[in-house]
Amino acid sequence: MPLYANNPDRKSWLHVDKNSDFPIQNIPFGVFLTRDDIVTIGTRIGDTAIDLGALHQLGYFIDIPLTDDIFLQDTLNDFIADGRKTWRAVRNRIAQIFDSNDKTLKENKSHKEIVLFRLDEIEMQLPVQIGDFTDFYSSMQHATNFGSLFRDAENTILPNWLHIPIGCHGRSSSIIPSGIPVHRPKGQMLPEGADAPVFGPSKSVDFELEMAFITTVANDLGEPIPIAEAEEYIFGLVLLNDWSARDIQKWEYAPLGPFLAKNFATSISPWIVTLDALEPYKVEGPKAIKPQLEYLQYKGKKSYDINLEVAIRPSGAKETVVSKTNFKHLYWNMVQQLAHHTVNGCPVNSGDLMGTGTISGPTPDSYGSMIELTWKGEKSIKMKDGSERTFINDNDTVIMRGFCEKDGTRIGFGEVSTKLLPIFKRK
Amino acid sequence: MPLYANNPDRKSWLHVDKNSDFPIQNIPFGVFLTRDDIVTIGTRIGDTAIDLGALHQLGYFIDIPLTDDIFLQDTLNDFIADGRKTWRAVRNRIAQIFDSNDKTLKENKSHKEIVLFRLDEIEMQLPVQIGDFTDFYSSMQHATNFGSLFRDAENTILPNWLHIPIGCHGRSSSIIPSGIPVHRPKGQMLPEGADAPVFGPSKSVDFELEMAFITTVANDLGEPIPIAEAEEYIFGLVLLNDWSARDIQKWEYAPLGPFLAKNFATSISPWIVTLDALEPYKVEGPKAIKPQLEYLQYKGKKSYDINLEVAIRPSGAKETVVSKTNFKHLYWNMVQQLAHHTVNGCPVNSGDLMGTGTISGPTPDSYGSMIELTWKGEKSIKMKDGSERTFINDNDTVIMRGFCEKDGTRIGFGEVSTKLLPIFKRK
Repeated sequence: MPLYANNPDRKSWLHVDKNSDFPIQNIPFGVFLTRDDIVTIGTRIGDTAIDLGALHQLGYFIDIPLTDDIFLQDTLNDFIADGRKTWRAVRNRIAQIFDSNDKTLKENKSHKEIVLFRLDEIEMQLPVQIGDFTDFYSSMQHATNFGSLFRDAENTILPNWLHIPIGCHGRSSSIIPSGIPVHRPKGQMLPEGADAPVFGPSKSVDFELEMAFITTVANDLGEPIPIAEAEEYIFGLVLLNDWSARDIQKWEYAPLGPFLAKNFATSISPWIVTLDALEPYKVEGPKAIKPQLEYLQYKGKKSYDINLEVAIRPSGAKETVVSKTNFKHLYWNMVQQLAHHTVNGCPVNSGDLMGTGTISGPTPDSYGSMIELTWKGEKSIKMKDGSERTFINDNDTVIMRGFCEKDGTRIGFGEVSTKLLPIFKRK
Repeated sequence: MPLYANNPDRKSWLHVDKNSDFPIQNIPFGVFLTRDDIVTIGTRIGDTAIDLGALHQLGYFIDIPLTDDIFLQDTLNDFIADGRKTWRAVRNRIAQIFDSNDKTLKENKSHKEIVLFRLDEIEMQLPVQIGDFTDFYSSMQHATNFGSLFRDAENTILPNWLHIPIGCHGRSSSIIPSGIPVHRPKGQMLPEGADAPVFGPSKSVDFELEMAFITTVANDLGEPIPIAEAEEYIFGLVLLNDWSARDIQKWEYAPLGPFLAKNFATSISPWIVTLDALEPYKVEGPKAIKPQLEYLQYKGKKSYDINLEVAIRPSGAKETVVSKTNFKHLYWNMVQQLAHHTVNGCPVNSGDLMGTGTISGPTPDSYGSMIELTWKGEKSIKMKDGSERTFINDNDTVIMRGFCEKDGTRIGFGEVSTKLLPIFKRK
């Protein structure tokens, strides 16, 4: 099925700002609570949210084979499980309905009143029920920086890193959509030179700038996904902030990896931008430094040119951008990650979330976490309000954004924005 | 509410073998497919499975506040979410219905035909939808053995181990009930002395003898569970075989822990034995070697005297028991694990599964994995059929069992039994 929805010349009859992340070429998917307290699946064009549940009930998808309640759900899991053919058909139809030349909905005032929402009338939810969350570690610069910061300068990239898209399992229960605040976590940490750990609030709460892909049902227990087929099972991408408490992490992480240092919260942007929408922004990734095993060898462009940035907004002040980087710096790409993840027969389901790991670019201002940007707090970052940061302060809001741009069309992710609250106090 | 169901003097009008794991004092919970292809929640007395969905429809729980469909579900999550008061009321009622002095069901032939099943008429399912799977690492002997085997003899127990109930996230999608076979996984491994890894079937597939507890809804994001309350949120326990591929594990595990070496399969026993049923078997655990932080300090007996064993059954031969150990050897107990897991505000939901980690006892014949029992294959274990094992062979079945026994009453878990098939071949 052609990617008719990606036509760069199409204009929508809905207003779209020039720098919007959501032109009619994007058509992302999300879940929101409407002004009538109904949860529905929707999309967004410009600053207008579109209720796909209502649109379907009104007959706008009538010749696409969809169950009646496919959009009247509180997660996208079932829709995603329907597979790429359905995703494409629905995106193409939405493009047609909102095309400036199509008058069906445009001139139906009562339908528009049911279907369209201003952004301040809705509340974005987690878009999928996440069965399993996997976090990869696929930025070479990040792995190198962490090797220096947590181990030693001699031992930065471990021998397996250039052969394996290293990853680990994460916690699903603490994944939250943009806008939900997070408490500073408490935990154990070992003060410099001490014999025994102390307990208290983390003093080094950090973000990790990541993206994550969401899968459809891919395989049964025991059955690997060949790399040539892996892309078929990827629905789309979101921004991800993998909140981390560095002092807790340093003390707990050997030998099984980070646990409480990360599972207190992981924030994601609420609109899933489909792989289809990102198709025009495909680029080659970094060249392999060492030969890769056959099951990890792929053909064609499998990386994406996605501009990323992180900003910190102190309470009551203006934000300061603290990092700018790009998705294309990732050494291991998504098809390699998915082929690797399933090569042992591990089953992948609809709604599984797979993070890239922190995306650090090659220059010090493109690193994807405060511990890298401030080199473990050795230097600080100046905010526009004159204050300085080595890590994240109470009541700071961390905002991540991402977009692609080419030939005058911009496809973006909106943002994932999360406020760090002081430690939790029992009422 | 009193643990009326635990009365050791009660006999059932259902037949129970002398050595059964499932006397009327047990009353575990599980999910099964009936001869009529209906999925229901049930319990078991002796070798009789009891359809709780049907029993509820027939009015046997009429004065307990339960929703009509609470047992007519394909998972126990909603029942578990109802909390301990409900679990106790239901167990007490079941004890009463099947008490040899109670004639209501005993003398109602048509009801019995609807409610009771022989074990060969049912097919046990996964008892819960597992939102998150956490695997702890709480056996000191196991951590010591692994320190020697994977690192070095100088560096066996890491400094954090005596302060933290170390754990990591696992994969939920590959958790399977007893009886589902598993394919030998393929993956990367680094041959001794080689510069680069090779790809192929694991040559060292191993079991890990664990138990796991299942939680109810415990806390919101940000809110720790105090250790004094932790037990309230634990529904019950199962046996768990944390399948592991040692050659894959050795190459991949640094720095984020095992991934593909473990996520190809994790098997659990299908009947959840409630913490209430295990109450008479509480014992003290090992004394703390180092002082523990306040949030990990508990009062009273929090360990359990549960006899555990592992057997290997080669294809077409009799089984050989290869290890006997006990749950009580675990250094960190469940309330410490749950208090630790949530001290940073990580939310715990109904149906979360938390493994103990491999339970290795103090003697070499009580170790909980083949790599420990054979000390990395340096010695082999003789099977009754004359063959030898260093790891698990294709078509071997690994069987784990567990039970408590005191004053003539035995409460057991049945078994988790899993056959290892040869590598998966695409049709």
